[in-house]
Amino acid sequence: MVYIVTLIAHKQSYGDMKKRLYEILERSSPHDIPGRTVDIIIISLIFLNILAVILETVPSIDRQYGELLRLFELISVVVFSVEYLLRLWACTSDARFRHPVSGRLKFILSPIALIDLLAIAPFYLPMIVPVDLRFFRAFRLFRLFKLVRYSTSMQTLVNVMRKSKGELFITLFALFVLLVIASSLMYYVEREAQPEAFASIPAAMWWGIVTLTTVGYGDVYPITAAGKFLAMIIALMGIGLFALPAGILGSGFVEEIQSRKKKKSVCPHCGEDIE
Amino acid sequence: MVYIVTLIAHKQSYGDMKKRLYEILERSSPHDIPGRTVDIIIISLIFLNILAVILETVPSIDRQYGELLRLFELISVVVFSVEYLLRLWACTSDARFRHPVSGRLKFILSPIALIDLLAIAPFYLPMIVPVDLRFFRAFRLFRLFKLVRYSTSMQTLVNVMRKSKGELFITLFALFVLLVIASSLMYYVEREAQPEAFASIPAAMWWGIVTLTTVGYGDVYPITAAGKFLAMIIALMGIGLFALPAGILGSGFVEEIQSRKKKKSVCPHCGEDIE
Amino acid sequence: MVYIVTLIAHKQSYGDMKKRLYEILERSSPHDIPGRTVDIIIISLIFLNILAVILETVPSIDRQYGELLRLFELISVVVFSVEYLLRLWACTSDARFRHPVSGRLKFILSPIALIDLLAIAPFYLPMIVPVDLRFFRAFRLFRLFKLVRYSTSMQTLVNVMRKSKGELFITLFALFVLLVIASSLMYYVEREAQPEAFASIPAAMWWGIVTLTTVGYGDVYPITAAGKFLAMIIALMGIGLFALPAGILGSGFVEEIQSRKKKKSVCPHCGEDIE
Amino acid sequence: MVYIVTLIAHKQSYGDMKKRLYEILERSSPHDIPGRTVDIIIISLIFLNILAVILETVPSIDRQYGELLRLFELISVVVFSVEYLLRLWACTSDARFRHPVSGRLKFILSPIALIDLLAIAPFYLPMIVPVDLRFFRAFRLFRLFKLVRYSTSMQTLVNVMRKSKGELFITLFALFVLLVIASSLMYYVEREAQPEAFASIPAAMWWGIVTLTTVGYGDVYPITAAGKFLAMIIALMGIGLFALPAGILGSGFVEEIQSRKKKKSVCPHCGEDIE
Repeated sequence: MVYIVTLIAHKQSYGDMKKRLYEILERSSPHDIPGRTVDIIIISLIFLNILAVILETVPSIDRQYGELLRLFELISVVVFSVEYLLRLWACTSDARFRHPVSGRLKFILSPIALIDLLAIAPFYLPMIVPVDLRFFRAFRLFRLFKLVRYSTSMQTLVNVMRKSKGELFITLFALFVLLVIASSLMYYVEREAQPEAFASIPAAMWWGIVTLTTVGYGDVYPITAAGKFLAMIIALMGIGLFALPAGILGSGFVEEIQSRKKKKSVCPHCGEDIE
Repeated sequence: MVYIVTLIAHKQSYGDMKKRLYEILERSSPHDIPGRTVDIIIISLIFLNILAVILETVPSIDRQYGELLRLFELISVVVFSVEYLLRLWACTSDARFRHPVSGRLKFILSPIALIDLLAIAPFYLPMIVPVDLRFFRAFRLFRLFKLVRYSTSMQTLVNVMRKSKGELFITLFALFVLLVIASSLMYYVEREAQPEAFASIPAAMWWGIVTLTTVGYGDVYPITAAGKFLAMIIALMGIGLFALPAGILGSGFVEEIQSRKKKKSVCPHCGEDIE
Repeated sequence: MVYIVTLIAHKQSYGDMKKRLYEILERSSPHDIPGRTVDIIIISLIFLNILAVILETVPSIDRQYGELLRLFELISVVVFSVEYLLRLWACTSDARFRHPVSGRLKFILSPIALIDLLAIAPFYLPMIVPVDLRFFRAFRLFRLFKLVRYSTSMQTLVNVMRKSKGELFITLFALFVLLVIASSLMYYVEREAQPEAFASIPAAMWWGIVTLTTVGYGDVYPITAAGKFLAMIIALMGIGLFALPAGILGSGFVEEIQSRKKKKSVCPHCGEDIE
Repeated sequence: MVYIVTLIAHKQSYGDMKKRLYEILERSSPHDIPGRTVDIIIISLIFLNILAVILETVPSIDRQYGELLRLFELISVVVFSVEYLLRLWACTSDARFRHPVSGRLKFILSPIALIDLLAIAPFYLPMIVPVDLRFFRAFRLFRLFKLVRYSTSMQTLVNVMRKSKGELFITLFALFVLLVIASSLMYYVEREAQPEAFASIPAAMWWGIVTLTTVGYGDVYPITAAGKFLAMIIALMGIGLFALPAGILGSGFVEEIQSRKKKKSVCPHCGEDIE
């Protein structure tokens, strides 16, 4: 913290300082050393915080180190709060949140700031909200993606997903149709033999998903001959559920790699560049 | 309904009206606003109807909202019936179903019209057919594919499936051969140790499919050393069952994307074709 | 049978007849009508025979139709025996089996003839061999591949498998190494907590395969914290087991399709064909 | 052993002998017959040793052949020890380990030598280390990769893995984030209904991995409606876990094959390069 403040102190004007702070907290490039340092500190803190939340739920650890873990959480929540307030203060240097009031409100309601708020909120409003919100801290993990935002790999993954989103959506839709039909049929076939496991179509859908995704816990499975025959066909269709997205993403990656290579291709007839 | 009637009323001749109605109900392009509207209304109704069928099977919901759900189903069956009759009336404007009698009969027997009939039939013949046909309503979900018929993604998926159907069929055939051999061998190996679970080869096939698709409910599994060894080999072969279709579809998607690109591969500078 | 005899009778010389018979039984091309007919009859008989073997094991069906099924099996075994003897007689017209005695012996020991012998043997030597050999009939199913031998799809599949066999073998080898290490570690970790399920490393391998293939019957699973942690890592590695062959086969199919297309490619500089 | 010694005896100088020995033991090319022979002997011994370690854990085999197995292990540990000492002596002929003392220490600490040491150590220090180290012998299996080091297939696999490591790491990272979030949510949702299975977040992670990898043992699964709904979504996301690496590796293999082909893409008729 002191390090950042010192760094900022070197800048003269108030506006420059705010802009630089925003850069450090929000858009640090891989070559921005102080920005990267703050990123690494915050990310390490998030990691350790997640670990603390996880370990706290283990009774034996909680009994021994509970006090320590809660002290660490208190310290990290203070750091996260200061970071949040600094970002809220500096956000106006971004064109999107320029207005001092409405811009800051817009910033508060942006997804990334909401996640941050959710991560610190449980410490400030334990008496207002009766629900246990501690597990929202898990959402802070999403911020880890900040670290990989600049890597080509992450860009490739996001590009492939975006390009293939049409085909992936159709696959998901086909899965949904298959799930409804399979579960409905299974409900009508098995409900007399197993009135509890197949009590309703939504109950049968639990069986449907567990079978289509090939998880197969074994808590629910057909016992009648007709039910077993139906389940065999549905389990086979579940294979397509894996093969389709694998194929779609595979071709997406091939396309992505080829399009990246093509940028430097030249027409063999006239020598000019071709997009 | 009134909206459609009004729209139709703007058309002068009886033939034009029929043709327009058919267009709206059957072949609406994405730019045909009234056609799209009817599509969306019908699809929403199907969705809500499916939801009603699903929720009706939950005892607690049925007790509270059963009456309401059945009223909604009554209304939707009326809408579906009107839609079916209108399509039956208008279908003669399609070249395939031109003849007033034999054309309409051909239309009734077409797959899409049969599904529609199956969807409304359970309401009209509950006393004739003793079987509970309500679950046929699940088939109406297939009509949802109408919505995605025009999307490039759906076309890609269908094209890839069609082109790869030879390889996919061979994979399915190999699976069938593997299933028969695995189940037969397992029956001979395990039937003495587990006379109930492996009572016959069809019974062993239940184990076979559950293992080959890696669902693994855990209701049936080999307990003898020989049976376990056999199951290990078969489970390993099950991996190929996932890898083969994934590979086939993957290359199918690559081919599809490349063939689509090839159509427009002309150098933008000199106008010559590029391989 | 009569049909074949008639067809053969049209041929004059004894050698021609033998050659034609061999062609019909062994190497019929898709355009050879009588050859195809014999193929279809034999294949249908195999299919029905497999069905009979399967159904015979169902006690209720066996009680009612057992006699009929056994009669059908008797007839088919006669047909298969005649076919086998005819092929044994005619095989000398093939260059590989030219010699009347040693050539025929070589034919008997060829894989395809051995499978056929295994399929009919159980009927002739039930008193000599005390083991129940009926399940060898399942091997006849392999003959079904004859039907698809001429299809391009089957050729593609076989080509891809052959080209990728190096990578697939390495994957299988890596799996084997992973299985041995995982099972050994799990044996040392879990044997005290579960002395029966993890009684030995081979016993632990049952758990290993069931986990790596993601079947997960649920009959054996770690219960200690260390065992669970180990199982989590191994289950994650199981994903690679699916991803690797899927990727290998996927690229194999892409390569196969591209190489098939390339056969008609022309060099853009001199206009000559390029392989 | 005698064979190697004889071979070495043919060489005159001490330095040449050492170099040749190092070549034979460490870097034998496929055409180096004596090197290959030593490789095959060592690898066979490793294989048989692994088999002995595995079989020894089976009580019935141990009772009958225990003495024999332990004798075989004694002999092989002597061979492995001699091999280790010879390699330690000869390693100085490698530029990396040139220095007689520090070079040899560096060699001892190299991964491949550490594995070898771990494989023989349990025989020499059974009284010093109280832990049973026998299972480290399983690590010797990694040495089997030596055999495939020269094959193109292994190179392809390693290249593809290396090139795709960015994308694969991101996938693993996304899995980790998904696992933490899923397990945390499930802990808060299910802990009241199942206080034992979901006692803590680490306990819930066992469920998380078993579900995401679609293993589904069936020892832990949600029983509340909210838990089941959550599990359905997580199981569906588990599909992506398989599809993403399959797609990444698939495109990696395609790229690898294409880049290998590009090196020799010259028209065989006019000698000009073709893109």
